[in-house]
Amino acid sequence: MTIEADIILIQRLAAAADRAVAPFFRGNSAVEQKADFSPVTAADRAAETAIRQMLSDDRPGDGIFGEEYGISRGRTGRMWVIDPIDGTRGFIAGRPLYGTLIALVEDGRPILGFLSAGAAGDRWLGCTVGTPRTVLNGRPVRTRSCAGLGTARAASTHPLVFSAAGHASFQRIGRSVADMLFGGDCHNYGLLAAGHLDLVMEENLKPYDWAALVPIIEGAGGLITDWRGRPLTLASEGQVLAAGDARVHAEALERI
Amino acid sequence: MTIEADIILIQRLAAAADRAVAPFFRGNSAVEQKADFSPVTAADRAAETAIRQMLSDDRPGDGIFGEEYGISRGRTGRMWVIDPIDGTRGFIAGRPLYGTLIALVEDGRPILGFLSAGAAGDRWLGCTVGTPRTVLNGRPVRTRSCAGLGTARAASTHPLVFSAAGHASFQRIGRSVADMLFGGDCHNYGLLAAGHLDLVMEENLKPYDWAALVPIIEGAGGLITDWRGRPLTLASEGQVLAAGDARVHAEALERI
Repeated sequence: MTIEADIILIQRLAAAADRAVAPFFRGNSAVEQKADFSPVTAADRAAETAIRQMLSDDRPGDGIFGEEYGISRGRTGRMWVIDPIDGTRGFIAGRPLYGTLIALVEDGRPILGFLSAGAAGDRWLGCTVGTPRTVLNGRPVRTRSCAGLGTARAASTHPLVFSAAGHASFQRIGRSVADMLFGGDCHNYGLLAAGHLDLVMEENLKPYDWAALVPIIEGAGGLITDWRGRPLTLASEGQVLAAGDARVHAEALERI
Repeated sequence: MTIEADIILIQRLAAAADRAVAPFFRGNSAVEQKADFSPVTAADRAAETAIRQMLSDDRPGDGIFGEEYGISRGRTGRMWVIDPIDGTRGFIAGRPLYGTLIALVEDGRPILGFLSAGAAGDRWLGCTVGTPRTVLNGRPVRTRSCAGLGTARAASTHPLVFSAAGHASFQRIGRSVADMLFGGDCHNYGLLAAGHLDLVMEENLKPYDWAALVPIIEGAGGLITDWRGRPLTLASEGQVLAAGDARVHAEALERI
């Protein structure tokens, strides 16, 4: 399988997810909802089902790990990791920053990532096979240069979801940066890849929350690791630190 | 001057601001920026200048109060209150939730408000003259019913901008609601008007931050007051509490 074929497929998967999710956004009453689960759950399931259907047709031997329907192991050493809707809190409130995250993981390493923030019209694709590269709506993007934390613009979705120790680390970072933006979920990582933010720090992320972001950040020239600077793996504890410039990343690791 | 003429004008003002701001969003390098002020300031000034120019042509006797160029008193008892870009922190980071806010204030009371979140494609118009009404992208919207704080979905832009006393109040509200969404700025109030959020609580807002939101919230059936439940006036201290349902508003006032 060539990477070009994978890129075409991941774009089709994301488009299918977009079509499945859009009718649920802002509570379109034309969408019939079952009484026993919320609109966001219905949208999550519709999107993941659409992606799984397409994968079972096109890549029956690959594994799948999705937020809603769990893990189905494959026989090719490749696995598609899916968060059908990242940013459900914002999705429920009608905020157009949620996204569908899809990663292709080979031998434990994410090599292709797609972030589709359909309501915002922002779609990022990152690839680390060959020359690392990331595009936003088809145009190449790069992270920006930033000399250190003191001039860094940072983002974190929710200040209240950190653990006690994590919150202390977050406060040290918060006091060190030039500015901190809240909310945003996966969309923040896309903005970092496109050179608009310098640092994103979060805790308690699941593999399907960050897998697609690894090729997007690395393809744009940035770094994304755990809070000790180690590569993220399926065994990681969900502490994620992404930076556009290695100097910011190193300084943040020291403060954490 | 009929309210219909005012509605046509406020839409033209917002469209002019949108056209002035858009080239600056996400640092379009085709836009020449003066060395001595930031892109966001340049965008702010371009938008407010466009609005002021149109007003000086169409309503030379009205007063204007804008964030960038201050107050010019008129002779008609009417004043246009302008925040050319609300949500500059997000604007700088490329997040598509910022908005231009324009209010028409008559005898100290905002009677017409426009919130143009151009990058999100969301445009709210609220009017309290005659039958109060609010539209989002041309379609009528209403706030939703919510029995109390315990089931309320709340939003607040930035947990760190409260005063010490304000933060204590905010924490009491934060512990009482079903969920709290961060970030969003003016866009949160639009989502409340459209029935997607139940409560927004903020401090340190200026009149140009909230003037346009009053007709938008009230036109949709909601309440927007200071933290003591009093109507917002130009003398208010910038503590703003908006709710879609009077029961949520009353309960929040008690907890504050």
